[in-house]
Formats: sequence, C-alpha cells, structure tokens
Amino acid sequence: MDSRRDFLQKFSFGIGVTALAGLPAVANDINPAGKADKQLRVAILGLGGYANIVARGMKDCKIAKLTGIITGTPSKIPIWKEKYGIEDKNVYSYDNMHEIKNNPDIDIVYVITPNSLHHKHVLMVAAAGKHVICEKPMADNAKQAREMIAACEKAGVKLYIGYRLHFEPHTKELIRMREAGEFGKVMHVNNYAGFKIGDPTQWRLKKALAGGGAMMDVGVYSLNGARYCTGEEPIWVTAQEGKTDPVKFADVDETVTFQLGFPSGIVANCGCTYNFNHVEALKLMGDKGWAELNPAFGYGPIRGTTHLGPLNQPDVTHQAYQMDGIAECILNGKADPNVTGQEGLKDMIVVDAVYESLRKEGKKIFINKA
Amino acid sequence: MDSRRDFLQKFSFGIGVTALAGLPAVANDINPAGKADKQLRVAILGLGGYANIVARGMKDCKIAKLTGIITGTPSKIPIWKEKYGIEDKNVYSYDNMHEIKNNPDIDIVYVITPNSLHHKHVLMVAAAGKHVICEKPMADNAKQAREMIAACEKAGVKLYIGYRLHFEPHTKELIRMREAGEFGKVMHVNNYAGFKIGDPTQWRLKKALAGGGAMMDVGVYSLNGARYCTGEEPIWVTAQEGKTDPVKFADVDETVTFQLGFPSGIVANCGCTYNFNHVEALKLMGDKGWAELNPAFGYGPIRGTTHLGPLNQPDVTHQAYQMDGIAECILNGKADPNVTGQEGLKDMIVVDAVYESLRKEGKKIFINKA
Repeated sequence: MDSRRDFLQKFSFGIGVTALAGLPAVANDINPAGKADKQLRVAILGLGGYANIVARGMKDCKIAKLTGIITGTPSKIPIWKEKYGIEDKNVYSYDNMHEIKNNPDIDIVYVITPNSLHHKHVLMVAAAGKHVICEKPMADNAKQAREMIAACEKAGVKLYIGYRLHFEPHTKELIRMREAGEFGKVMHVNNYAGFKIGDPTQWRLKKALAGGGAMMDVGVYSLNGARYCTGEEPIWVTAQEGKTDPVKFADVDETVTFQLGFPSGIVANCGCTYNFNHVEALKLMGDKGWAELNPAFGYGPIRGTTHLGPLNQPDVTHQAYQMDGIAECILNGKADPNVTGQEGLKDMIVVDAVYESLRKEGKKIFINKA
Repeated sequence: MDSRRDFLQKFSFGIGVTALAGLPAVANDINPAGKADKQLRVAILGLGGYANIVARGMKDCKIAKLTGIITGTPSKIPIWKEKYGIEDKNVYSYDNMHEIKNNPDIDIVYVITPNSLHHKHVLMVAAAGKHVICEKPMADNAKQAREMIAACEKAGVKLYIGYRLHFEPHTKELIRMREAGEFGKVMHVNNYAGFKIGDPTQWRLKKALAGGGAMMDVGVYSLNGARYCTGEEPIWVTAQEGKTDPVKFADVDETVTFQLGFPSGIVANCGCTYNFNHVEALKLMGDKGWAELNPAFGYGPIRGTTHLGPLNQPDVTHQAYQMDGIAECILNGKADPNVTGQEGLKDMIVVDAVYESLRKEGKKIFINKA
C-alpha cells in the first residue's frame, strides 16, 4: 500500500521510466515541471452519464489524457469533440473500433457501458491490443470476469477495474491505518451504499443490461469496502432482499442486505439500495479503535472520523486520481493497486454468492476459492 | 403513545385514581404536592449487578418505591438493608418468598435473575399473587414466555418486561415522530447493540443460565428497536454468527447479525456482540427523513439526531422513569406501554427464529403468528 500511497505525491518529479516487457508501448517521458511530455492516452468506450463525469474529471489529470471516444450514438460525437477536444481520427464506432489497434494516440480504453456489455466490450478492446479499464461492476458474474482476464492476458494487455476509491485519500488513509494495526484486530464491518434511483425506464433497472439491481451497482461498494476494511477474503456469504416497490423493481433487486464471513471469524454486515437516501456509510470496528467514513462511496467529498479524530485528508477529483494512478502503473511500472481484473473477479465471486443466497432464502453459500 | 408520552409530565399533579377491577389492591393516593401518599411498593428478586443499578435509579422515583428484596445470598441482605432502607419484614429468601402473598408492603416484584431463571421466578411471583416486572430477555424462548403470560393471567396479576427505553425521552420522541409520519415511510433500519464483555466466568457466558449469548442479551435491544422503528411485526428472520474467540464463547454466541423482514417489504438489518465496543447505534431511514440514536441502548445519556437536527430531550434516570411509568399504569390505570408480557413474547418469537436460522446456516425462518 505504501507505494500506492506515496506515488500521487511523487509522480510529478520524474521518477524515471520502467519498460514493461511484453506490453504495448506507451508514451512515458515525464518532464521536471510536473506535466508529462507524453501521457497515457485514454479513449472512453460508451458515452453515458458516468463517462461524462470521467471526462470532466480527467481535465484535472497530470499524466492521463482523454484522446479518443468509441460510441454507438453518432449525435454525441460533435458534443464530445467540442467539450473535450477529441480529434476526428480518434473517434470510433463499435463497428470500426478494431482499427484502434493501429492508432498510436490511444494507449488504453475505458469501458463505461451498461454492466452486461462490459464482457463483450473488454474482449473487443483486448482484441484490438489496447490496455483496458472496465467500470465496476466488472461483469454480470465471475464466469465472465474470468473470461475477460484470460482474454487480456492472452492479448498481453493490462486490465483494470474502475475502483476509484482505491485512489481516494480518506479511503487510502483508512486502509493504511488498518494495515498498520491502528484499529487493532478488525472485529466487524457495517457498510451501506445506495440512493433513491429516479427514471424507472433507465438501463440500471433492466436485468438484461444491468445484470442485477442495487447489489450489482452500489452493493459492490459495500462489498469492496468490506474487503479493504478487513484485508481478508470472505469464505461464506448470506443475503436477503427487501422489496417495497415490486413494480419499479420488477426486474432487479431493490434493497439487499448481505453478510460476509471471513477466515478470522468476523462478519461484515452490508447493505445497498436503489430506493432510499441517507444510507451511505462505512464502519470499521476494531478492538483498539474504529473508523467511520460518511459519505464513504460517493464521488466526494468523502468524510471520515476515527477514534483518533477526523481523517484530515485532501478532497480530490476521484476520476482524475484514478486515471493518473493507473497511468502511473503503466507508464512507470508502479505496482498495480487493488484495482486489477483479479480484484474485480474477487468481487464478482461474492456477487455470484449473494445472488445464489437470495435464491436459496438466505442460506449460507461457501465460497470455493478454486 | 401520547398518553405515555404525556404522563411523566403529569403524574405529579394528582390525576386521580382508577380502580383496577380484579387486580390486587395497591396504594394509590397521590397528594397535590407531587409525591404519592402511598406508592407502588417494589421488591427486587435477585440482587446482582443490574439489580443494584435499578435500586440506585429508583431513588429518583416519585411513585414507585423499593421496599423489599428476595435473595438466595444472605450476605447481601445487610448491605441492601443499609443502602436502601429495606425493613427486615420485607426481606425474603427463595424458600419463603411465597409468604410475600400476605405482605401489604409489596405490590410488585421485579425479577432480575439470570435469564434462564426468569420463567421459574415469574411463576413463583405470580403464585404469590403479586404483579411482576421481568427483566429482559423475558425468557429462554417463546414457549416459556407463553407459560409466564398464562400464569400471570391465571393469577390475575400484571406482567411487564424491563424495556426501560420505552420510557426514555429520546426513544419516545423517535417513536412519536415515526408514528406522526415525520420520516415518511420507513424504508430501512440498521441497529447495533453490544460491548466487549469482561470476566469469562460470568453467568452471561453460560448457556444454562443465560439461554444464549450476545443475541439473548444485547441483541434484544437491536430487535426491540427494529420493532419500534417500524411499528411492524417481522414475518421472516435470517441470522448469522461471527466467532473470533471460540474458547471464551464456547457456550454462547459472540457476535450475531440478523435480519427481519416486515410485511411492508422492508428489512431491518441488526447486529449485536459481546466482543467489541464502538458498536451501539440505531438508524432509521425513511423516504422523507431519517433518525440516528447513538448511543441508542445504554443506560444513558442517549443521543439522537434526525434530518431536522438534534433530538433535544431531557436526560433521565432510565430505571426511575421505567418504574414510575409502570407504577402509573398500575396505580392510575394508564394504558400499558409496549412493555407487557405480550411485547416480550413478540421479541422471544423472533429470538427463537434467530437461533433456528443460525442452526440452519442463515436460512429464512418464516414466523408463524399463531
């Protein structure tokens, strides 16, 4: 963790270049003034709501740069060209995106399509020989996640998941404190994520596009948070659903509570919802201290308190820190933080178990590590 | 709720007397100066740690008065006589407590023995023709609770459970706001209660005396709180246990998470523990507002915040308010608050389901209302 923790302070000082054998060549010269001469050039695939947030956030990047777009909606092209200075030669449709292979202005593609399309689109990017960032949730299930990892390995490209909080200072400080033993032994975790969702016609409420409901989307924050609060991998999972609006949530889960049993004997008790607000918080209870982040999972500002007082950390643009952080790994060979495809797979294994437990009326699902 | 809510402000003004047909006679004259001429005279059965807290608290009572003790430990008698001015004629052992029947200085007996003895002792008090308050948890299970209710009904005595929070101003205000619709529709509840338990040899860690562990003791706060946060009765229950110290908690549950499904479709997600601190909180999430009590279940002070700001309520001696509140029901015929044997039974039905779900690896237990 320390290397990750330090690098965002260090990256503007020209640490030097590490060649990544076997990986596609990327621009990697950083000048002493703090801006890279050549940067990690990013294309976004899928230009929906969150893609706009990422693109705006990337204006704060120092070594990642938005250079391209891939979209199935031609009407969005002029808007994005104007807003973000995208050049015509870096604009693709899904039909011609295989040609990205030959475009030296694109090093990596950030897939921000509806959840159930991630698998297909990541495979397409890998086939084009570019690194990939896939927005969370990684896929519909662990099987897809494994296929995505395999495809990227075969293509010799890196695969990251859009876990922006692993680059967020309050979250990183909490993880650092936990690893340093400042909370003592972690005894319990209680995480909630969610919000009241609006438009009932949106793709997030259609299982064929979203893979699931609250659990698949915001539940992954509670779950990923339980893993970074404990530093352990769950060995069993139980889950329950609350449903107050069977019409709006006919196709997907509305509110899910789930529990993760860890090898140390502790349980993380989590929740997520698409149907109410005032819910978001992360609580870590240790035998020597405690931490609470509230808000814990939104786009910021994140706020935190521990037994020692407020977590005084800077507020940052999450998406910029995420993209610069990933750029740093690729450009300068920094160790990958916990945002790789393997990390995404670990969450998807739990998501699979959550849905299996829901189908089996809450019964404990033991996780097969194989 | 309103009558309960108002009476603690009113009871010192000589509201008058309501005869309770068919119930044992009790002293019931209250003078205009604010102190009762004759009060509800209470004997405590079982003189352990919490009995001391109750006895100390009762020094703040206005219409309840500690007059007697029943104990199996003769060495405690002189200490209690001195501390609380107990007269010799009001001191009993378990062997001669049936003679309480003929003692006009004792109207009601507060049973504060280890959990698994509640059933036996409540039956003994009922047989002696006195009203009963039974400390929570009411019993080891719902079967015992039903037998206790039946015995008190047969004897024509009232049965209350020591749910002191139903007399606590912050808690009452939260319930009032919920009933008035100030939170809108309740969408979720997340309650935790517990603490790190000390002495490994104490009765609370022995199943034969405690009936269970954290769930049986502090879990009842989370559970009862979920019922007063929603105003609904659960229709299903799931539960999971975390165990980090199988030696200390060989006989009873250490940390339990449990979920209650309500008819409206919402879920209360609760937890309780005997093995860590920094855990206690009640959270109600509504579609128009929210409330958090933290601390929520201890002996005070309770602190609360809602979407409207801090819950400004007086800090009171919980045990004194509880005992005066029960006295007011008996002396002046006020409507019983949610602290009757029937209320205790409702919790025990859920506790039974929690333990059944634990035995069945988290599987959903549907509650049979019959």
